[in-house]
Amino acid sequence: MATYRVGILGATGAVGAEIRQLLAERQFPVGELRLLASPRSAGQTLAFAGESLPVRPVSASELQNLDIVLASAGGSVSREWAPVAVQQGAVVIDNSSAFRLEPGVPLVVPEVNPQALQNHRGIIANPNCTTILLCVVIYPLHQAQSIQRVVVATYQSASGAGARAMQELLRQTQQILENQPATTEIFPYPLAFNLFPHNSPCNDQGYCQEELKMIQESRKIMGLPALRLTATCVRVPVLRAHSEAVNLEFSQPFPVAKAQEILGNSPGVELVENWQNNYFPMPIHASGKDAVLVGRIRQDLSHPCGLDLWLCGDQIRKGAALNAVQIAEYLIQKNWL
Amino acid sequence: MATYRVGILGATGAVGAEIRQLLAERQFPVGELRLLASPRSAGQTLAFAGESLPVRPVSASELQNLDIVLASAGGSVSREWAPVAVQQGAVVIDNSSAFRLEPGVPLVVPEVNPQALQNHRGIIANPNCTTILLCVVIYPLHQAQSIQRVVVATYQSASGAGARAMQELLRQTQQILENQPATTEIFPYPLAFNLFPHNSPCNDQGYCQEELKMIQESRKIMGLPALRLTATCVRVPVLRAHSEAVNLEFSQPFPVAKAQEILGNSPGVELVENWQNNYFPMPIHASGKDAVLVGRIRQDLSHPCGLDLWLCGDQIRKGAALNAVQIAEYLIQKNWL
Repeated sequence: MATYRVGILGATGAVGAEIRQLLAERQFPVGELRLLASPRSAGQTLAFAGESLPVRPVSASELQNLDIVLASAGGSVSREWAPVAVQQGAVVIDNSSAFRLEPGVPLVVPEVNPQALQNHRGIIANPNCTTILLCVVIYPLHQAQSIQRVVVATYQSASGAGARAMQELLRQTQQILENQPATTEIFPYPLAFNLFPHNSPCNDQGYCQEELKMIQESRKIMGLPALRLTATCVRVPVLRAHSEAVNLEFSQPFPVAKAQEILGNSPGVELVENWQNNYFPMPIHASGKDAVLVGRIRQDLSHPCGLDLWLCGDQIRKGAALNAVQIAEYLIQKNWL
Repeated sequence: MATYRVGILGATGAVGAEIRQLLAERQFPVGELRLLASPRSAGQTLAFAGESLPVRPVSASELQNLDIVLASAGGSVSREWAPVAVQQGAVVIDNSSAFRLEPGVPLVVPEVNPQALQNHRGIIANPNCTTILLCVVIYPLHQAQSIQRVVVATYQSASGAGARAMQELLRQTQQILENQPATTEIFPYPLAFNLFPHNSPCNDQGYCQEELKMIQESRKIMGLPALRLTATCVRVPVLRAHSEAVNLEFSQPFPVAKAQEILGNSPGVELVENWQNNYFPMPIHASGKDAVLVGRIRQDLSHPCGLDLWLCGDQIRKGAALNAVQIAEYLIQKNWL
């Protein structure tokens, strides 16, 4: 069986760590694994498949002789190094927002639009976490009956801002329990026992970057350039899974039983509905899972063609690392590297 | 100046404590204050205006010779004792859901429908907390231009389930920080670093009681029996303020500047929007405030006549205790007791 030379750029971050774990867990055909990071983060050693590997500072020479680079080191690092890796023969699957909306760059959720991978030019973009979770759930419904409009409110965990943000939430929580003021470094405001609209900058229309990503990326992934979608993105004091309250409008009524049947049989989705016990998707149960959990599917009482549903997914896993690894697996399977 | 004999039924709960504080803070004309609770909770003494008052077990005789009873001891207690108090001459302002939808019982948010108080028959219902916060904000907009449909997702704090639920959240948080399993007593699932759809029972259509309250009570309060409203209610690990992501549809476009102007001048509402610093309403800043904070008002990109907005309000205060005290003040002012 062929093996591949894999680089993880941003190996010391939360997503980088998850990618490393997933490569081992899914027995990805790794021939060589190179752990790369910014000079600031390089120097430590990390475990992989029983071995201890050094984290090296990213450079052109470190990006030579790689088949696949899984990048999750932020937009500016990707903008600088992804083209270098591609020029030297690698395919880069990039977690940042740097290339997502660039024409010619596939933006892929494997359960939704894997065929977009075929004509890549070296860089493939991994979508925004909140968008991935949404598309995995709503696309199968859209295939059955065309979606007219989406209104979504998110409940996003600290992990979306990285490992240090998760530490910050834990530290702030401890501070508050000890009656000390909560100190902030990563987030602009305390997150412990609090929540706030997503702190990415707002445009002139009042939408923050995170919300615009959901709108623009959903359109590109689902191939619906005119999809009507509005979002309110909110950061909540949860460690690592994102949740979303989703209202969907179709052009005709969508029976709840049909939606349940479709989502119960959709790849990457797990239907979690126990109406008797009021048991539905929750972050603590979505954390560490591959599937996006969906439940509370019901006919919208305010719209004859509306459906309401609720979903939770592991932001680090399906929202980032797993989706990227799945893309790599698909490329290998189709021989599209 | 006339003074009034006031009873607080449920004096030992979170809302009861807040009512006691508000009566003092707002210099409510209290002639006599009687603190009442279930036999289980009675016995302790609580402070009011420099005095130490006993909490007595509720009984017919304890409900004699009162002008106003502010009840927040749950539906079954209200169903048993509110009629007794009324029969003996008191006006009962009841925080439970027992009488809210009963024809002839005013369901009042003083900023919205104070005139409904005029024809009360002794019992006045204080609405559900989430509903109060919503109505205070959307009613002024509706007065300018008729609302066609509301899609709302809530972020509800532990306080909505009472003081013991707040203690449970703190205890669970401590347990998790100490790597112990989070134990549950009040909520069915751990709330610390987690969230879940509101745990009130769901009906056959998949709506939980909390969501149905929002639908039915909003209609009654705003006098719009056919208002189209859908809600997804979610409990989040916040101590005492509720937040809501609200999508509004009007019959024609509603300019953002007009909405900002209206809400900037509406009673009980405070416009909190600093787009540069990404500073909008947050639970920690809404806590302890009388006003409902609103911000992130923007044209809905998915609907030509849509507006999105974000609000936070103190669930114990305006969501319960303050609204009840305001009702009492209004009755006194109008001489409608």
